[in-house]
Amino acid sequence: MRSFEKYVKEIKPASKDLYELCAIRQTKLTKPPGALGFLEAVACKFGSISAAFPPSVPVKPVVCVFAGDHGVLDEGISPWPQEVTLQMVANFLSGGAAINAIAKQVGATVVVIDIGVAGDTSGFKGLVSRKVRSGTGNLAREDAMSIEEVKDAIQVGVDVAASEISKGADLLVTGDMGIGNTTPSSALISWFAGEDIVNTTGRGTGIDDAMMSVKENAIRAAHQRLRESQVQDPVAVLGAIGGLEIAGLVGLIIGGCHAGVPIVLDGLIADSAAVVAHALNPNIVDYLFAGHRSTEPGAKVALEMLDLRPILDLDLRLGEGTGGCLSIPIIQAAVRSLVEMATFDEAGVSEN
Amino acid sequence: MRSFEKYVKEIKPASKDLYELCAIRQTKLTKPPGALGFLEAVACKFGSISAAFPPSVPVKPVVCVFAGDHGVLDEGISPWPQEVTLQMVANFLSGGAAINAIAKQVGATVVVIDIGVAGDTSGFKGLVSRKVRSGTGNLAREDAMSIEEVKDAIQVGVDVAASEISKGADLLVTGDMGIGNTTPSSALISWFAGEDIVNTTGRGTGIDDAMMSVKENAIRAAHQRLRESQVQDPVAVLGAIGGLEIAGLVGLIIGGCHAGVPIVLDGLIADSAAVVAHALNPNIVDYLFAGHRSTEPGAKVALEMLDLRPILDLDLRLGEGTGGCLSIPIIQAAVRSLVEMATFDEAGVSEN
Repeated sequence: MRSFEKYVKEIKPASKDLYELCAIRQTKLTKPPGALGFLEAVACKFGSISAAFPPSVPVKPVVCVFAGDHGVLDEGISPWPQEVTLQMVANFLSGGAAINAIAKQVGATVVVIDIGVAGDTSGFKGLVSRKVRSGTGNLAREDAMSIEEVKDAIQVGVDVAASEISKGADLLVTGDMGIGNTTPSSALISWFAGEDIVNTTGRGTGIDDAMMSVKENAIRAAHQRLRESQVQDPVAVLGAIGGLEIAGLVGLIIGGCHAGVPIVLDGLIADSAAVVAHALNPNIVDYLFAGHRSTEPGAKVALEMLDLRPILDLDLRLGEGTGGCLSIPIIQAAVRSLVEMATFDEAGVSEN
Repeated sequence: MRSFEKYVKEIKPASKDLYELCAIRQTKLTKPPGALGFLEAVACKFGSISAAFPPSVPVKPVVCVFAGDHGVLDEGISPWPQEVTLQMVANFLSGGAAINAIAKQVGATVVVIDIGVAGDTSGFKGLVSRKVRSGTGNLAREDAMSIEEVKDAIQVGVDVAASEISKGADLLVTGDMGIGNTTPSSALISWFAGEDIVNTTGRGTGIDDAMMSVKENAIRAAHQRLRESQVQDPVAVLGAIGGLEIAGLVGLIIGGCHAGVPIVLDGLIADSAAVVAHALNPNIVDYLFAGHRSTEPGAKVALEMLDLRPILDLDLRLGEGTGGCLSIPIIQAAVRSLVEMATFDEAGVSEN
């Protein structure tokens, strides 16, 4: 048995007592009650995951960018060629992508994992090489992965979480790269939310009406196959739909939750991984922050299903972990306010 | 003549050419066109204000917290006693307030200016002492300030901007403290936006229905006096309504704009100052970023009038500059992405 299967069963709800201690402290700080709005809820949730009260401001955020390719690209669901996944992995490693600029600004470390890139990455320096297979099967016609492959891919994510946490990571941010990956993400969110695919499927990197129709039909075919096979297990559903990087993110989430390290979700791809993780154990949501809300319609469906309010809403639709990283300073500031602000008593400020 | 009067006339629109250069660069960077959403517009706007192309990531943000008291408190428009303004100034200086925690997190310097605190601040270390008068007159019954006083207060803001810019500030954030100051802010926004006060007036730090009615009546009385005196000049309107810290923020905005340094607005109080500044010279809006949208209804009215999209929307209603400071890393990340990302050519990434 892989450790993730054990971990999934062991993840408990976050501490209601710690949440309450944080909420009580909020009322004593030198501000009108509730005046920091959603920031107060963010700080209390962070505190509820922490080992002690008061929590510590996270100082080592790490964004883990899982890269994989998608067989469904054969259907013609993206204007971008598959080789862009490989090229962007190289771009991440040389520091030229959006995630590099944004992570640098917020003091986050970027870790890039090849979990399923179709091309040869053997010469790439700084890459975490954990390729489970070279791209998924075409979800429109076959299972994206075998059961063993999807379990291996989830385990990769768990291992990456453990490795980064052992090196000091105290906040994990989900990142992804995979041309075509909004197709499996939309398919997963539709499936688990019980929402029609027209409400979970968007234009990804920017596709036209004809391509949109192909994309929707690919998802319909995958769902039809799932219904016929009467698959119930969330891991098997993930294996049928893909992708490898989404499975890696499911593992990252499981690994972070199990270690009590908060996870910041980026956009649609991460949201779909969170939906799968939630199906495995609903307690997982207690450890998740929604960094932002992507413009992809499936992101809205997933976040509402998970009851996660996004920290940012900036019309991002890039992935890579960009929106997740942008929310890091907000989370840090929320926790710092809770921890460092003076109380009315300490500051000698009159209460009303 | 005070320099602000000259400055107001000299502020030109930001450069459309620089904006366009930034927008063209956005299309060449290794991301799908538009995938960074509002971040791309933020970066282009920042670039349009800059002295050269490409712009530099701002590295020395300074939040200027202007503190003043309000005679309208005599009407009973706030549950908080006036002394809290003075106490919170002390709290800012000793580092115990929300703005201290948040500014520390985002690397911003906090500058606190007594422009009109009713109490004695002479022994306060680290305070910029520029008191114009000890609190305003009660806007419900008399002008908040004389014409000379309001001009002096605006000039204080211009002087603070100049002083901070001379010390290296490359991003100015508005901050405020003044028990009762949502009353003049709502009054100013209502007046300049031509919007009924019920749509611009909220519950500030948290007031009940009876107090809310008193607050609205105070604003109605001020507006009635303004109509009867047929005042047109925005500076005179500001003088009649107040407050001293709002006038200081108007000056900070004018000073920043004139020097080509972008200004980040915090919440309602800053929005009202921006509305006044806009009435003096509409070009000013080219230099403003709305850090967030306060829950106060007047903030929404002001930002729509100024056509400023808020960067954050976190249900904050604290002031002090907190929401403005929280947006700093987003602005920095937007500019850094524009400046540091590789182009498709540079990274060898295929375009679609």
